[in-house]
Amino acid sequence: MPYINIKVTNEGVTPEQKAELVAGATNLVQQVLDKDPSTIFVIIDEVDTDNWGIAGRLVTERRKAYG
Amino acid sequence: MPYINIKVTNEGVTPEQKAELVAGATNLVQQVLDKDPSTIFVIIDEVDTDNWGIAGRLVTERRKAYG
Amino acid sequence: MPYINIKVTNEGVTPEQKAELVAGATNLVQQVLDKDPSTIFVIIDEVDTDNWGIAGRLVTERRKAYG
Amino acid sequence: MPYINIKVTNEGVTPEQKAELVAGATNLVQQVLDKDPSTIFVIIDEVDTDNWGIAGRLVTERRKAYG
Amino acid sequence: MPYINIKVTNEGVTPEQKAELVAGATNLVQQVLDKDPSTIFVIIDEVDTDNWGIAGRLVTERRKAYG
Amino acid sequence: MPYINIKVTNEGVTPEQKAELVAGATNLVQQVLDKDPSTIFVIIDEVDTDNWGIAGRLVTERRKAYG
Repeated sequence: MPYINIKVTNEGVTPEQKAELVAGATNLVQQVLDKDPSTIFVIIDEVDTDNWGIAGRLVTERRKAYG
Repeated sequence: MPYINIKVTNEGVTPEQKAELVAGATNLVQQVLDKDPSTIFVIIDEVDTDNWGIAGRLVTERRKAYG
Repeated sequence: MPYINIKVTNEGVTPEQKAELVAGATNLVQQVLDKDPSTIFVIIDEVDTDNWGIAGRLVTERRKAYG
Repeated sequence: MPYINIKVTNEGVTPEQKAELVAGATNLVQQVLDKDPSTIFVIIDEVDTDNWGIAGRLVTERRKAYG
Repeated sequence: MPYINIKVTNEGVTPEQKAELVAGATNLVQQVLDKDPSTIFVIIDEVDTDNWGIAGRLVTERRKAYG
Repeated sequence: MPYINIKVTNEGVTPEQKAELVAGATNLVQQVLDKDPSTIFVIIDEVDTDNWGIAGRLVTERRKAYG
């Protein structure tokens, strides 16, 4: 029954990477907590760099500053 | 003041269905908990089938496998 | 596969009311979106009135002011 | 390490406004809780007015009714 | 109608600090986005240091390591 | 910068298991997306079985029915 939410910036995550995240997170929770994998949900949120801030600045601006 | 979040896969939910979800969820919380409906919020998140996993696989892949 | 999260203030919600919320929300999503109920999740978060603000004030303070 | 999530309707929030929200929220948590700003995250979710309900109705409908 | 969620570690946040966070976050969104403050919600989640990880380790362990 | 939230029922998850979840989730995102682990956050929410429903029933009731 576990529910896992992964938020990352929207910078070209491929369907293959998403499939790896889902498989890996499901396997992790199954292994550590002995949960039935058939009821494990994973939702991936891809967040625009204009909508994510860290240390007081948008990621968009940080990318420009640090390359 | 209650807040309700409904996450579903992004597969053609119509504005009419969204209106029904909002009305129904608001009514449910109002009835069960005797809350003022004017302060009940509902947010619906439509999640791409490439971003939702269950049982270790993306919903996109499950749809292909099970039709 | 839908996921529903209901946040309410922590003011004596009974297990019977929680069961009604879960049954009602599950039924709503099943009816409106024609989803298999066996994969519908509901999580209820009970939030302390010291941790919920509206209109710039804690609910705890609003309760004192308005009774 | 704090994490702040701001959900608003998707009605033309500019990058400048997003930058102000991120700077302001980061500064607020830093000032009130004396946290290191370098580890403060802010995520802004812009929600379609068809996906946000209040008082039992979609915001889209409320906008039409109240102008 | 904005909704703001602030997650911090559960390390002695006082009701006065919570009131400042609620007032400050409400004021910020009101100023930047010109929103009616009466419909702005803030929820503060206090998370145990055993339930928050950063850089692969629980905050509880980091606190022991770095003092 | 990724943020991972894991919700599980509150049924005796140990600090060791929590540390494994944090380490494993951080490692997964680092491996799959090539992210700097120092900015990966994990928050674990333990949800009471009275507050989690599946298939229209509280987990508490399901546990009684299915043992």
